[in-house]
Amino acid sequence: MPCSRAAAGPRRWRVNRLSSVLDRGSPAERFTASASAQGRFRSTEDCLHWLDEQRALQSYAVERVPFDRLQGWRFTDDTGNLVHHSGRFFTVEGLQVGLRPFRVPTWTQPIIVQREIGILGILVKEFDGVLHCLMQAKMEPGNRNLVQLSPTVQATRSNYMRVHQGRAIPYLEHFVAPRRGRVVADSLQSEQGGWFLHKRNRNIVVEAEDDVEVLPGFCWMTIGQVQQLLRLDDVVNMDARTVLSVMPFARPAADSGGADPFRSALIRSLDPEAASVHTVTDAISWLTENKARFELTQRRIPLLDTAGWHRGADEIAHVSGGYFSIVGVDVRARDREVAAWMQPLLRPAAPGRLAMLVRRIDGVLHVLLQARPAAGALDIVEAAPTLHCTPQTFRTLPTADRPQFLDYVLDAPQRQIRFDTWLSEEGGRFLHALNRYQIIEVEDTFPTTPPPNFMWLTVRQLMTLLRFGNCLNVEARSLLACLHTLW
Amino acid sequence: MPCSRAAAGPRRWRVNRLSSVLDRGSPAERFTASASAQGRFRSTEDCLHWLDEQRALQSYAVERVPFDRLQGWRFTDDTGNLVHHSGRFFTVEGLQVGLRPFRVPTWTQPIIVQREIGILGILVKEFDGVLHCLMQAKMEPGNRNLVQLSPTVQATRSNYMRVHQGRAIPYLEHFVAPRRGRVVADSLQSEQGGWFLHKRNRNIVVEAEDDVEVLPGFCWMTIGQVQQLLRLDDVVNMDARTVLSVMPFARPAADSGGADPFRSALIRSLDPEAASVHTVTDAISWLTENKARFELTQRRIPLLDTAGWHRGADEIAHVSGGYFSIVGVDVRARDREVAAWMQPLLRPAAPGRLAMLVRRIDGVLHVLLQARPAAGALDIVEAAPTLHCTPQTFRTLPTADRPQFLDYVLDAPQRQIRFDTWLSEEGGRFLHALNRYQIIEVEDTFPTTPPPNFMWLTVRQLMTLLRFGNCLNVEARSLLACLHTLW
Repeated sequence: MPCSRAAAGPRRWRVNRLSSVLDRGSPAERFTASASAQGRFRSTEDCLHWLDEQRALQSYAVERVPFDRLQGWRFTDDTGNLVHHSGRFFTVEGLQVGLRPFRVPTWTQPIIVQREIGILGILVKEFDGVLHCLMQAKMEPGNRNLVQLSPTVQATRSNYMRVHQGRAIPYLEHFVAPRRGRVVADSLQSEQGGWFLHKRNRNIVVEAEDDVEVLPGFCWMTIGQVQQLLRLDDVVNMDARTVLSVMPFARPAADSGGADPFRSALIRSLDPEAASVHTVTDAISWLTENKARFELTQRRIPLLDTAGWHRGADEIAHVSGGYFSIVGVDVRARDREVAAWMQPLLRPAAPGRLAMLVRRIDGVLHVLLQARPAAGALDIVEAAPTLHCTPQTFRTLPTADRPQFLDYVLDAPQRQIRFDTWLSEEGGRFLHALNRYQIIEVEDTFPTTPPPNFMWLTVRQLMTLLRFGNCLNVEARSLLACLHTLW
Repeated sequence: MPCSRAAAGPRRWRVNRLSSVLDRGSPAERFTASASAQGRFRSTEDCLHWLDEQRALQSYAVERVPFDRLQGWRFTDDTGNLVHHSGRFFTVEGLQVGLRPFRVPTWTQPIIVQREIGILGILVKEFDGVLHCLMQAKMEPGNRNLVQLSPTVQATRSNYMRVHQGRAIPYLEHFVAPRRGRVVADSLQSEQGGWFLHKRNRNIVVEAEDDVEVLPGFCWMTIGQVQQLLRLDDVVNMDARTVLSVMPFARPAADSGGADPFRSALIRSLDPEAASVHTVTDAISWLTENKARFELTQRRIPLLDTAGWHRGADEIAHVSGGYFSIVGVDVRARDREVAAWMQPLLRPAAPGRLAMLVRRIDGVLHVLLQARPAAGALDIVEAAPTLHCTPQTFRTLPTADRPQFLDYVLDAPQRQIRFDTWLSEEGGRFLHALNRYQIIEVEDTFPTTPPPNFMWLTVRQLMTLLRFGNCLNVEARSLLACLHTLW
């Protein structure tokens, strides 16, 4: 028991006399300032050029391959699960899901199982008094354009424990204890509950205290620059978006909203003292209520036993052609010195639509969130965007079975749409998983009381829920990051 | 899509203009006031008498029975799991656990599986301006003294969905939506991770707006009265303690601490603005770090396949005689009109020791918490008491393998012990699971820096973590409720 008795000299506690202020104020103000700042190293346009250059430099070819040529991977004899020969990375297995109350109370499906907790980390550092993020131009085989803007570190545990023959992961030392630098945000956050079983990553932002060498493929940008790029189609990847969403922001200065009532309401929505329809206690209770209301059972089953799913030579697909398929890809670099590999990817059958309805209530912007269960959720329900679906799935269903607000979003007039961008989900696991992300301001005649699994919350309240992890799903976090680009 | 288009009349948002103040201030102040108040209906001594009367009235007999006489329960042929004939309530199954880094990296054990989310709810109501809690005198077969003080409602989902032939659960309507009354706290909180797989209950406090009829077996008490009873051995049950722990408390008035530096430091520790060693962000990061550091795998296996565990005629026990055993009990009421039943219970082999070390740091009381993994944890690690163990297990182990601070707690002089009470764990699942709960103030020579899986936090910080659920284990929550009795 080495720690209990050793005689101690005079102790020096580093007490945070103003911890609560520091916690909400000072660093958060510096993040807000960075969101309005131009970069010290490159203009935003040059950042985009740099990304194109990196795409040219890294020059990869990704090709579909049939399963019998998918080196390193095999289907096990007894279960038909798709596994790596090392037993690590991830597996594709079967999941039997029970969900009540739900349109379909029970089904089976393939699911990606990756219980390891990976790291998504952004390193920040002040230059000339302005915080910059160290962003990476990273190739992921599932991206249509291959290279997108990524966090400083984006690594599975297998990666960073060096299960495979890869090189050390640059900058990893900033994100694992014992570390130098100051942790600004650090929580476990979920990923696609329809495609992953219990998948979470650590979302972490660390402020570097020492000099940081900029390696090839990395670039310092202000938060404002990253946000400008986030408004473009398919530039900022999912992992960068979710880390952006956990950054602390203080309320921006009042005058930055100008005469635009939407922006003014958004800025007020970041204020901890803003008038809100509900309290945070109400929000937690609403999530709790919905977790108790839905009965979700999850049972891992052999991939062979998933009903309605068939394994062909080059894909595992549903008989309907819907939902998604599992395919294999061969990833090769033109530059022979860089590693090549093969891997399975999940390929969605159709693009999704993720929309947040927002509304000014007494001058404060509120976001309409949905308590939404997911097949692979760790904790039954998370807060999701107002609309979170694949419209194609519902085309043939009667109106009563269509998701709430689907028609509203599909028919929203242009003047109400505040954000509208196509963004990719994780290109390391999903092939061409492009979704349309929208933020839509509703008109005053919009019904006052939402259905019981929906709730109006302010941006500050979303940020409070986010701090603790496991409250907002990854699509809602992406949209929160998008919403932050609008103030 | 019924909700999106309906023409709406002039809307009336019930906006919380001061939601953040209300959230922390006003109701919390009323809870603090109730903690210092005597009851309007009975003195605390009378409450104790009432509990004794109820014990006499309810008059149950609980007897051990061998498994072949355990009506309603059976071992399944293929797995040997112990199940109820209805398929509900709970099962006793096998669990294969992998935990790294840990003294024992892999083991198997019996585990209680009960995935349903039950309700532990306390109804509060103001009388003469003072909040009172509607407490229940409830019999649970595993309690040595059978009847203890319980929440207003303590019900599994099977219970309240009326799977068995039981009567309606009194006061349930206050805790399930749509409800009247105001939710003061409502979160999912875990229970014994060594004995339960992924078990959680909804901890909910609701303030009644209407008149409430007091049924036999129920009694209004102030929080102060419940706290006084909590200082007695084996009176307030685990379910009441965990609901007490989620109640909001504002910082008590400064003079209530008087000249006692411990009490003054404790009172300051409830202040949101108090100086603290760490921030809440640090605390969340510390839990995240430990969740990423421990690799926990859980696989449900047949109970028959648990190595080292043997099923006899009247117990399932470990060959060492340690840990716990599974036994059956027959529960009968002397009053024939009340239901009788049989059920399995988990019987710990020896009492546990749960201790919180506390320390004044710059005049503010800090609690030393441990990030502790558990076999059946839903999310790998939770914050646990400084010492959380069964001392008997470690008697024969070399010092290096003994839990941190075990010897410190065992040898603590009386003058440092601020709270010391024997309390039972859930008597509906555990037989005579008595643990010794202690709060011990360390001396100034105590080492400054704790080991990396420990952290000093203020009481207010614990309360913040608690609001979101899944952060503090049930033993830490019990000790927080005990700590609140000391201001």
